[in-house]
Amino acid sequence: MLADTLLSLDQSLAVARVITLVDMTAVAVFAISGALVAARREMDLLSFVFVGTVTGIGGGTLRDLILGVRPVWVTQPDYLVICIVASVTTFWAARLLSSRYRALVWMDAVGVGMYAVTGAQKAAALGAAPVVSVLMGVMTAAFGGLMRDIMCGEKSPLLFNREVYATAAILGASVYLVLRALDLPVEIQAAGGFCAGFGLRAGAIVFGWGLPTYRRPARPLDGPDGRD
Amino acid sequence: MLADTLLSLDQSLAVARVITLVDMTAVAVFAISGALVAARREMDLLSFVFVGTVTGIGGGTLRDLILGVRPVWVTQPDYLVICIVASVTTFWAARLLSSRYRALVWMDAVGVGMYAVTGAQKAAALGAAPVVSVLMGVMTAAFGGLMRDIMCGEKSPLLFNREVYATAAILGASVYLVLRALDLPVEIQAAGGFCAGFGLRAGAIVFGWGLPTYRRPARPLDGPDGRD
Amino acid sequence: MLADTLLSLDQSLAVARVITLVDMTAVAVFAISGALVAARREMDLLSFVFVGTVTGIGGGTLRDLILGVRPVWVTQPDYLVICIVASVTTFWAARLLSSRYRALVWMDAVGVGMYAVTGAQKAAALGAAPVVSVLMGVMTAAFGGLMRDIMCGEKSPLLFNREVYATAAILGASVYLVLRALDLPVEIQAAGGFCAGFGLRAGAIVFGWGLPTYRRPARPLDGPDGRD
Repeated sequence: MLADTLLSLDQSLAVARVITLVDMTAVAVFAISGALVAARREMDLLSFVFVGTVTGIGGGTLRDLILGVRPVWVTQPDYLVICIVASVTTFWAARLLSSRYRALVWMDAVGVGMYAVTGAQKAAALGAAPVVSVLMGVMTAAFGGLMRDIMCGEKSPLLFNREVYATAAILGASVYLVLRALDLPVEIQAAGGFCAGFGLRAGAIVFGWGLPTYRRPARPLDGPDGRD
Repeated sequence: MLADTLLSLDQSLAVARVITLVDMTAVAVFAISGALVAARREMDLLSFVFVGTVTGIGGGTLRDLILGVRPVWVTQPDYLVICIVASVTTFWAARLLSSRYRALVWMDAVGVGMYAVTGAQKAAALGAAPVVSVLMGVMTAAFGGLMRDIMCGEKSPLLFNREVYATAAILGASVYLVLRALDLPVEIQAAGGFCAGFGLRAGAIVFGWGLPTYRRPARPLDGPDGRD
Repeated sequence: MLADTLLSLDQSLAVARVITLVDMTAVAVFAISGALVAARREMDLLSFVFVGTVTGIGGGTLRDLILGVRPVWVTQPDYLVICIVASVTTFWAARLLSSRYRALVWMDAVGVGMYAVTGAQKAAALGAAPVVSVLMGVMTAAFGGLMRDIMCGEKSPLLFNREVYATAAILGASVYLVLRALDLPVEIQAAGGFCAGFGLRAGAIVFGWGLPTYRRPARPLDGPDGRD
């Protein structure tokens, strides 16, 4: 019985370690994506750090506020150090890239796959219903990038591309929750969720996958600025 | 004395039931308004669901975070199911409407009237001062729609129309608080607040009611992009 | 020993008094800056109050949510009264100004200097690491103005001007924390942090100080709307 308890404690620690690793990588990757938008806007070094940091920790902060826990970076400043290092490195390295936009899209895709897993994990660990856990995964994955795009005045936030985006986060979070329900090792759960979410998004980027969209009737638009 | 306690418990349950009903209806109505903006932007089905859900629960989530309680939808997934059903239905039904923009404006008006009541109620129930309860009503009513319009890149958020909008939410929340102070039945409180807020907004939509606005001096503008 | 306890209680009260004063002034100053943007957009009186209030309390609300305490204005409605009075006064007084834009920039600079101090103070008082306290200072200082500029559809948020802005908040918060570590009287700590932050921003406004920015390679842009 003591052995059981120790084993379960051991498992909890393993989960915490894997999820923290995925979470920190997502933070770094999103911070880079934020700094790449700052590069496109020709900002100065400290604005790189600010945009990178807000993009990096934005999704996790919203997740933690909604779940009623203090955002991780308040007690673990490592998260901020990661954002600062990632942003400063990008300030110097961005000009070496042949396309900042392509790098941004791919960094964002990696981050979405990872944050979908940690968002769903943290909600599920608190006993939330599956639909809530999936939404937490999607919000965690989408919010940092949305803040980044709104803050910097991007015309077309990545989130609303014709290509699948929210859909990839939904798939990643769902696959993670299924593997979790099957009680597979935590590395498999996290890797499976990430691969499903990132894989779908990657396919969408490369092959232009998209879901059928709503088509407005072909008719003059109404509304104050010509909207229908 | 036991009878008194039971009566008061009964009243609390009645309040909870009425307010929850109004809150859920506001969520559905705002989700539809979000999905209608998604229709104007020709998004895909899952983006409809995402925009609809964020618009539907946005105001209530901010309200609950500020009041220090866990957002309702985390523990009651019904709220999310409502958003999903409303968004998906709108995806199919939107093309049947003769004007999506007019439907959006009216759905938004109904939601504003309802969320003004539930925002003010939740703050007042925690013993907040009247001015705080009114602001909570206005923020709850305005935030989801503001998120919707900012997320989707609308040029002129409904909130800042020439027509009264924040004013309608202020009136709705205030009337609710007066009826509450008079200790009228909860159905009367909620209906009175809703009718005042929605009625004022409806009049503004139909008759173009507006408050006098600030007029800038007629003079060339200064500031970096020609602002005064 | 009782004398020690009383003395320390006395000091805590002095800190609370000074910080509350700085915080309330920052709220008033940001509310005015919000109302000045409302003036540029020719809004009505109640929209002035709404934009002014959200700008005034926005930074402090985010700070308090992240630190896990109830936003101050929920329990102290004085904060809201300050915002209302500041916004209404601006509605009448704005046309007396020779340049609303210049007034906005300066009000914003004063607010940034003050909120950088109170943001850093509240985080440090909870035992946060210096890097966390500095970020809290910057976020508190930047968030209200960012909300204001995003809400009102400003093309170039002040935050991302070529002139130093985030940098001024970082300096103000850092100087405050150093003076705090030196255990100087709280008035000196607060005044030192404010003067450093506001002074740097003021110099930037007057003399156009800026940090070197990232320069994009001179090459046609890629990405969906001509981005690189």
